[in-house]
Amino acid sequence: MPGPFDDIRNLIAAMPGPDAEAAAAVAARDASLTKPAGSLGRLEEIVAWLAAWQGKAPPSFDRPLVCVFAGSHGVTRRGVSAFPDAVNRQMLDNFAAGGAAINQICAAYGLGFKVFDLALDVPTGDIAEGPALDERACVATMAFGMEAVAAGTDCLGVGEMGIGNTTVAAALYAALFGGEPAHWVGRGTGVDAAGLGRKVAAVEAALSHHAGHLGDPLETLARLGGREVAAMAGAILAARLQQVPVVLDGYVSTAAAAVLHALDPSALDHCVAGHVSAEGVHAEVLERLGLRPLLGLGLRLGEGSGAGLAMGLIKGALACHTGMATFAQAGVSGRSAG
Amino acid sequence: MPGPFDDIRNLIAAMPGPDAEAAAAVAARDASLTKPAGSLGRLEEIVAWLAAWQGKAPPSFDRPLVCVFAGSHGVTRRGVSAFPDAVNRQMLDNFAAGGAAINQICAAYGLGFKVFDLALDVPTGDIAEGPALDERACVATMAFGMEAVAAGTDCLGVGEMGIGNTTVAAALYAALFGGEPAHWVGRGTGVDAAGLGRKVAAVEAALSHHAGHLGDPLETLARLGGREVAAMAGAILAARLQQVPVVLDGYVSTAAAAVLHALDPSALDHCVAGHVSAEGVHAEVLERLGLRPLLGLGLRLGEGSGAGLAMGLIKGALACHTGMATFAQAGVSGRSAG
Repeated sequence: MPGPFDDIRNLIAAMPGPDAEAAAAVAARDASLTKPAGSLGRLEEIVAWLAAWQGKAPPSFDRPLVCVFAGSHGVTRRGVSAFPDAVNRQMLDNFAAGGAAINQICAAYGLGFKVFDLALDVPTGDIAEGPALDERACVATMAFGMEAVAAGTDCLGVGEMGIGNTTVAAALYAALFGGEPAHWVGRGTGVDAAGLGRKVAAVEAALSHHAGHLGDPLETLARLGGREVAAMAGAILAARLQQVPVVLDGYVSTAAAAVLHALDPSALDHCVAGHVSAEGVHAEVLERLGLRPLLGLGLRLGEGSGAGLAMGLIKGALACHTGMATFAQAGVSGRSAG
Repeated sequence: MPGPFDDIRNLIAAMPGPDAEAAAAVAARDASLTKPAGSLGRLEEIVAWLAAWQGKAPPSFDRPLVCVFAGSHGVTRRGVSAFPDAVNRQMLDNFAAGGAAINQICAAYGLGFKVFDLALDVPTGDIAEGPALDERACVATMAFGMEAVAAGTDCLGVGEMGIGNTTVAAALYAALFGGEPAHWVGRGTGVDAAGLGRKVAAVEAALSHHAGHLGDPLETLARLGGREVAAMAGAILAARLQQVPVVLDGYVSTAAAAVLHALDPSALDHCVAGHVSAEGVHAEVLERLGLRPLLGLGLRLGEGSGAGLAMGLIKGALACHTGMATFAQAGVSGRSAG
C-alpha cells in the first residue's frame, strides 16, 4: 500500500545530477582570466558549483532569493527557550516591516526575500510525548515548501524562524546520527543553565518516546521536526529538481538538509553551507554531511542571516568570473616558460 | 643626529587610541536590536571596532576605499616568480581598464578603488646582495603611501601588486620573526619546485647579506622590503592618525603591517585581517600579530581581493547595526523572565 511519503521518495529518486559540461566551461574560462591559476580559491569552486547545478555556463545570480520559513513548536511549553512563543508572530511582523537582520542583509546584497508563515498560531505537537506532525501533515508541509522556490530563482537561501526549533533540530540530529541526546543540544538563542537542562530533558524524552520509530528519516522528520523544518526539506529538494543551487543557513536549516542526506547521501550536492554557526555542534554536523562552510563568523541568529551573507560573497565570486578580462583581452603575459 | 626614520617614529608615538565611548554606544544599541544578544557574532564586534577607530557611533561605511600599491623588485632576476616582470605594468593597465578581480569586487560592493604606481619601471635593489631601498627612499615611499588615504575615507582596504613580492615578504617575516628563512617562503603565484628552491635561496642570501642590520624594523623594511610594502606601511599608519579603520589583504600586505607591529604592538589595533591567505604561513603570521581573519577562502591573489571581499561583509554588518529595529520599535518581546 502506498504511504504518504512515497511521492517524496519518488522525487528523491528523480534528482538530477550536476552538469559536468557547464562546470568544465567555467573551469576553462577561469584558466583564461587575468590571475594565477586557482588564486581565487573557493570563489572559483563556488562559481563552478553554481554552473554545475544551474546547468549553464556562465551561471547567473540575477534572481537570488532568501526564503525564511516560520513555525511554532509544542515543545516550548517545557521551557526550552529564552524567548516566549509570542516572538514568532512579532518577528514575522518585524520581517514584514523590514526591521530584522535578514532584511538589512538582503538589501545590502540585492537578494530577494520571502517569509512563509506555516500555521504559526497552531503549534506542532510536543515531541517529548507525541509526534510533531502526522505523516500527511508533514508531507503537505514539505509540498508547501516545494512551492516556495519561485520560478526564475537562480540561487536559494534557506532560513527559518521558530522559538524552540533548536530543540527540535537537536532531537533530529540525535535520531539521525545517534549518540547521547545531550551531545546535540546547544544554547540556542541563549538559554541559561536551567533552560539547557530542560532542553536536554526534552530531547531525551523525545528520543525515548519515539524509540523504535526513528528508522525512516521522513518518519523521523514528522515525529521530531516541525513545520519550518519540513518546509525547508521540501524547498531544498524542489530546488534540486528545478536546477537551483541552495545556500544553507545554520544549525536548524542544516537539520532539514540532514533528513534529505539520510535519505540519499547525494541529496545535498547542490547545497553549500553558508556558514558554520556558533550553536553547539553545527561544525560537527556539517562535517558529517560533507559540507564545508563558506563563512565562520560566530553567528547564531538563524532567519537566513548566514545564508544571506554567504550569498553576498557568491555575488562577488560570480562578478569576478563574468567581469574579469582574459590574459588575451588584457594583453597580460602568462606564466614564464622557464 | 636625527635619522631619516625619526618622523615615522614620532608619528607612531602620536597614534591615537580607540574611542571607548563610541564602541560602548554601539554595544548599547546592539543590545536593543531585535535579535538574541550577541547572535550576530563577529558582525557585532566589527561594527564596534569600526566605531572605536572612526571615533563615532554609529560608524559609517559611506566612502570605503581599496588602495592597491604596485612596485617592482630587483630580486626577480633570480627567477623567484612564475610570471615575468612585465606583468606589473600589464596588470596596472588591466586595473585601469576594469578587468582585474579587484575591479569586480569593488563594483559588487560599492567600494572606491585607487591604484598607485610606485616607480614601477625602476625595480628596487636585489635584496639578496644589497638594500632594496636606501633609508631616505624608504621614508619618501612611506610618505607617499600616507598621502593615499583620501580625505573622507571611512574604511581603507590595503592591497598590492608586484611580481616577486612574496619573496620580499618572506624575507621580512624571516627578519622580524626569526627562524629558518625557508619556513616563511611559499609558492606565491605558483612557482614550481625549482622556483621555490630559488626563492628560498634568495631569502637565505638576503638574510645572510643583511645580517647585523636587521634590528630596527624600519631599517629592515628599507633593506628587505619594496616600494609597495613601504607605501602600505605608510598608508596603514596614516589611516590610524586619520581615524580610518583598515582592512588588510593577504600575505604581502600583512608584511607591511608586521613592520609597524614590530615598532609598536598596538600599531595594528585599528586593523582587521580581511582574510587568511592560502600562501604558506599567512595563518601563522596573523596569529603572531594577534589578528583574526574575517574570511578563509583559500585566496592567494593579492591586489586587495581578500580585503575587498571582507569589506563587502563589513558593509552587511553595518547595515544590520544601523537598519535593524529595536525590540521597543518592533514590539518584540525580550527574553523571558523565568
